[in-house]
Amino acid sequence: MVVKSELKLIKSLQQKKCRNEHGLFVVEGKKTIEEVLKSDIKLYKLFAVDSEDFKIEGVEVNRITNKELSQISSLKNPNGYLGVFHIPKQEQKIPSDWILVLDGLQDPGNFGTIIRLCDWFGVSDIVCSPETVDCYNPKVLQATMGSISRVRIQYTELNSYLSFNTLPIYGTFMDGNNVNDLRLPEKGILIMGNEGKGISDSITQLCTDRLAIPQFGGTTTESLNVASAVAILLHEIRK
Amino acid sequence: MVVKSELKLIKSLQQKKCRNEHGLFVVEGKKTIEEVLKSDIKLYKLFAVDSEDFKIEGVEVNRITNKELSQISSLKNPNGYLGVFHIPKQEQKIPSDWILVLDGLQDPGNFGTIIRLCDWFGVSDIVCSPETVDCYNPKVLQATMGSISRVRIQYTELNSYLSFNTLPIYGTFMDGNNVNDLRLPEKGILIMGNEGKGISDSITQLCTDRLAIPQFGGTTTESLNVASAVAILLHEIRK
Repeated sequence: MVVKSELKLIKSLQQKKCRNEHGLFVVEGKKTIEEVLKSDIKLYKLFAVDSEDFKIEGVEVNRITNKELSQISSLKNPNGYLGVFHIPKQEQKIPSDWILVLDGLQDPGNFGTIIRLCDWFGVSDIVCSPETVDCYNPKVLQATMGSISRVRIQYTELNSYLSFNTLPIYGTFMDGNNVNDLRLPEKGILIMGNEGKGISDSITQLCTDRLAIPQFGGTTTESLNVASAVAILLHEIRK
Repeated sequence: MVVKSELKLIKSLQQKKCRNEHGLFVVEGKKTIEEVLKSDIKLYKLFAVDSEDFKIEGVEVNRITNKELSQISSLKNPNGYLGVFHIPKQEQKIPSDWILVLDGLQDPGNFGTIIRLCDWFGVSDIVCSPETVDCYNPKVLQATMGSISRVRIQYTELNSYLSFNTLPIYGTFMDGNNVNDLRLPEKGILIMGNEGKGISDSITQLCTDRLAIPQFGGTTTESLNVASAVAILLHEIRK
């Protein structure tokens, strides 16, 4: 049994405002919870329908009924496990590698896939404009498959962030230079824009280089999905 | 007003069985409908809440109320337009280019993204095992952004399909050869497997070459999302 006030608190964490207010976020699914437990992110409370099934040293598991879980889960079909974690403090670090900057990305699934890609390609910092979808949104977390625990994500005003940096800033544009013809440096900033509108005007002006992924065949496809573009560009960067 | 029997028919097309029985599928959203109308795919009927807003020569637009639309739409928030189209006949063509083969792909969003990628990279044929998610599934169509009209998709038993072909067959495996070190031929078959299980054993045996996308940094990320992998591999193929 979980007390009502706690159920209410956890349910409220589906909203960004409440996540920020309480400094907590929710992770669902056994495997993703295990990934986050392995990281530096601090556990607040862990719930499981079958607590016998989830034994990790030093971690207290609270029993929850299926009915209670369905009340607080963001999933249509909750899968038996729910962890509440503390949102890590944002650290400002001097970049020693490529950084991915997201300017107003909106789709949670895209963001989750991009976090997973950064983890795969060893890009450990993502910097987001305040308008970018919240990385602790349940749908983002579901798509990260636990990678959220290995990538640092911060939200900040991009104009000032980019103005104070000395790395080359690569923006992606339909009419940019073919990425296959370029030699990319060892450090840099890669900016990806909003799914519909691309990179905003003020950020476009700060780009020192313009990149494009060449299309093949017809010219009818309007654009690559932003997560597909990140996959190709990080692959090129790491070659 | 749309007659009840028609509403029932269209609603039934959310199920694969009914789509195949009637040879019809549903496309929602003005932009995607416009893309499909431009293709060889034949229109069955077009519905719009505001029929004044949708004028295409030679195309009859049927008025539908918001209430009727919400009864038959697969979307939580229907967006005013719904087109019913005839499923195109499968043509067996001799491949003259790269072909993408999907062995049991399950996620509709991944499939939609992959169709969009094939369109972008000019790969016009996708061949799927019978277990692969149906390409006329509403969630697949939503993710294709209209690309479905420019990529031929067929479902067939892969063992016999692959046995009769003379092209090199590239499978993707965690322990395959680094794609960056290979020169890929002008024609070939690229096989992608199921999200969880990868390529099935019987199909693995038919692969003539084993590919892998190199990871960078730690080795903690379990795998790339299959659509991300397709993005990188088609980019490499078209270089």
